[in-house]
Amino acid sequence: MIEKNEKIIKNCAGTLGDFYADSEIFHSTDDGIHPSRDDIISILLDLRKIVFPGYFCGGEYNCAESYKTFAEKLLCDVCHRLSEQVKIAMRFENDGEYSEEQIDEKSDDVCRVLCSELPSIQQKLEKDVKATFNGDPAAKNTDEIIISYPGILAIFTYRIAHVFYKENVPLIPRIMTEYAHSRTGIDINAGAEIGENFVIDHGTGIVIGETTEIGNNVKLYQGVTLGALSTRKGQELSGVKRHPTICDNVTIYSGSTILGGKTVIGEGAIIGGNAFITQSVLPKTKVIVKPSEHIFKTDETNVEIGLWEI
Amino acid sequence: MIEKNEKIIKNCAGTLGDFYADSEIFHSTDDGIHPSRDDIISILLDLRKIVFPGYFCGGEYNCAESYKTFAEKLLCDVCHRLSEQVKIAMRFENDGEYSEEQIDEKSDDVCRVLCSELPSIQQKLEKDVKATFNGDPAAKNTDEIIISYPGILAIFTYRIAHVFYKENVPLIPRIMTEYAHSRTGIDINAGAEIGENFVIDHGTGIVIGETTEIGNNVKLYQGVTLGALSTRKGQELSGVKRHPTICDNVTIYSGSTILGGKTVIGEGAIIGGNAFITQSVLPKTKVIVKPSEHIFKTDETNVEIGLWEI
Amino acid sequence: MIEKNEKIIKNCAGTLGDFYADSEIFHSTDDGIHPSRDDIISILLDLRKIVFPGYFCGGEYNCAESYKTFAEKLLCDVCHRLSEQVKIAMRFENDGEYSEEQIDEKSDDVCRVLCSELPSIQQKLEKDVKATFNGDPAAKNTDEIIISYPGILAIFTYRIAHVFYKENVPLIPRIMTEYAHSRTGIDINAGAEIGENFVIDHGTGIVIGETTEIGNNVKLYQGVTLGALSTRKGQELSGVKRHPTICDNVTIYSGSTILGGKTVIGEGAIIGGNAFITQSVLPKTKVIVKPSEHIFKTDETNVEIGLWEI
Repeated sequence: MIEKNEKIIKNCAGTLGDFYADSEIFHSTDDGIHPSRDDIISILLDLRKIVFPGYFCGGEYNCAESYKTFAEKLLCDVCHRLSEQVKIAMRFENDGEYSEEQIDEKSDDVCRVLCSELPSIQQKLEKDVKATFNGDPAAKNTDEIIISYPGILAIFTYRIAHVFYKENVPLIPRIMTEYAHSRTGIDINAGAEIGENFVIDHGTGIVIGETTEIGNNVKLYQGVTLGALSTRKGQELSGVKRHPTICDNVTIYSGSTILGGKTVIGEGAIIGGNAFITQSVLPKTKVIVKPSEHIFKTDETNVEIGLWEI
Repeated sequence: MIEKNEKIIKNCAGTLGDFYADSEIFHSTDDGIHPSRDDIISILLDLRKIVFPGYFCGGEYNCAESYKTFAEKLLCDVCHRLSEQVKIAMRFENDGEYSEEQIDEKSDDVCRVLCSELPSIQQKLEKDVKATFNGDPAAKNTDEIIISYPGILAIFTYRIAHVFYKENVPLIPRIMTEYAHSRTGIDINAGAEIGENFVIDHGTGIVIGETTEIGNNVKLYQGVTLGALSTRKGQELSGVKRHPTICDNVTIYSGSTILGGKTVIGEGAIIGGNAFITQSVLPKTKVIVKPSEHIFKTDETNVEIGLWEI
Repeated sequence: MIEKNEKIIKNCAGTLGDFYADSEIFHSTDDGIHPSRDDIISILLDLRKIVFPGYFCGGEYNCAESYKTFAEKLLCDVCHRLSEQVKIAMRFENDGEYSEEQIDEKSDDVCRVLCSELPSIQQKLEKDVKATFNGDPAAKNTDEIIISYPGILAIFTYRIAHVFYKENVPLIPRIMTEYAHSRTGIDINAGAEIGENFVIDHGTGIVIGETTEIGNNVKLYQGVTLGALSTRKGQELSGVKRHPTICDNVTIYSGSTILGGKTVIGEGAIIGGNAFITQSVLPKTKVIVKPSEHIFKTDETNVEIGLWEI
């Protein structure tokens, strides 16, 4: 019996190996080294410790002064690991485009750009947290927002991943945003452009497409899609602006769908729940969706039909 | 190059440190001790071992008798760690409101209250599991519900977190419910009041707001929002009843939204999928949403328009 | 104080233990051994390493040749652990139906069936990845799809779990699919039948019921429910075909709900966003949902009502 199983396993492994080697898309590298999702996520979470040291660090730092020491030490380590992952990712996707020297240089550049942007990311996140608190009657304090709100994890991750997206680093931005998607149900493509004081409430099911532009003071509720009108053309549309533009001071309530690259939601507009919008909305407009007819049946009256009042 | 990077990292860490220290909202404690999300989640998962020992414990207990021994030992350990986290959370949010003595006393109280409520939580969960099984033709047995259903993880977490919410423990209830939200897509605020035989099917996207009241024998499907009519006033609404009341024996199908603190869904009502309800519904009422007009285009007829029949 | 707490904890543990022992549904085994969710997930993730070795394995293999060695070694280990979990799960749910001998034999069978199906699963996944890439303008390459897309994790998990479902292995298929549900928000029941070139975009909130049938070249967006018309009868409906049939080349856009075991979506149909379908749709049909009336209020005009154009 055991012998028979051994043979079956050996055969299975052989077939898998042959198909893998012959596949057009499956990757084989000579040294077996490939980008590590775990390492990339660990870089992301360490960056969160650096940005919010008083929330995710245990006893690793003691006061404002030693925070600097802590941040410097950990950032140094993060840059080292990041540089490794950038190199691995570039080699993995490199079709002879870049020399090893260029890859080295690029990985160095990426770390420098991250360091130059990190302070402004921290400042934006502080504003995101404040705006979240001010708009949420269920929030008891800003600390629980930083520690536990999915919106802040998704926004933090987006703001970091966006740096790598702009630098054209392969794989790493998507791995980061899909990690946040997995933990929060909020799917923000790293390519989106998002302003200050950005608020996400509840968040599950939100989709923000790659070419979306979002201004300042925008608030989104759960289940909002900022998507493309049609994706039938697939890869042909790569790089084309196909997701909407949301101007400053817009609120979009839960379950609403806004589609198309030419669709602009004007400054100060409020989009009610379950809207379905494929054309631009003027500034300061309030869009209310008249719900479908609701039919109320009771045992006594059997059927009573009436247009639902809003 | 390395030297240059070192300087950039040092500068970045310095800027981050200065901003953090000056921030109105970012927390710095002298000793660097802050509530630990990991420890709080580990307390929650150990409580799950205590409530459902035959499912999450490995070989740690052997029979009904030794289960008591196991439960006592683990509960003792959990109470110790919980007491620590309650103290840390209270100090973290303490603006001189409470003395160290009061904090000590409170952390002790919280453990006692948990112990007094744990048996009734276990009994309610048994009923939740039974009700889930009876209503789900895809469930093969109650064991897979306990081990793997997201609804039970979310309800378990809510029932535990609700104890801490009622005791006004800062941070811990929210950290627990957001953990369940992260793992299940089900966002139940710890402040909600939820009766017996509560069933959640699939669950992704469910939102149950802080002041929601839910009776016995209620069943919710994926994507149901029990929310507030308006949150424009933000923190001004803190403490105000702003989420609906769902009476006994109500079923709410997927994608429905029920909003407002004065909205009461009467006993025995059935709310069909994708409903949008902002006013009360009488008891025993069946609410059917007439779907929007669906337009059917085929190559042959080009366009055929007809009201979709339900 | 401490003594008082000890007594409270002891009492609590005693009450919990008595209720647990008396419960109709809670499981107690003499040896305390029960199926391990962690071990089952680790088997699933190791199978992913075997199927996609160039993405999740670190430096564990070096080239196509040594990949076979790696796959054989790891598959051997996986089969051993799987066999253990199958035995434990069968004993756990065994009401004297099967002898120990039969359980041994079954666990051996399951491993053999897995090995015989793994190559075709790998080949299907390659097609799923290609189809995902071709249809997604935001995808930069196939590697990021394999490493990070939630759709591929959910489809991979479904394809593995479906093997165990067909073999009537208790608990294991559901634990696997709920793991993927937890990580992706995509809830595919292991009982569904799903063809080749299956694509899931974004995915959060998708529900695919147990008796769903899906052909080849089908694409689903986030929030699509393929569900049952009524589940009021609960366990009575166990085994009955109650979820829809989706033929080849169908695309279903976000938020659409398709219900019922007799509902067939014909070959080549395109179902627009937010559709609600409970009757069959002819082949090649394009279903467009006329959105509800949207009311646009602005400060100037106060109220402007118009039927929203699609």
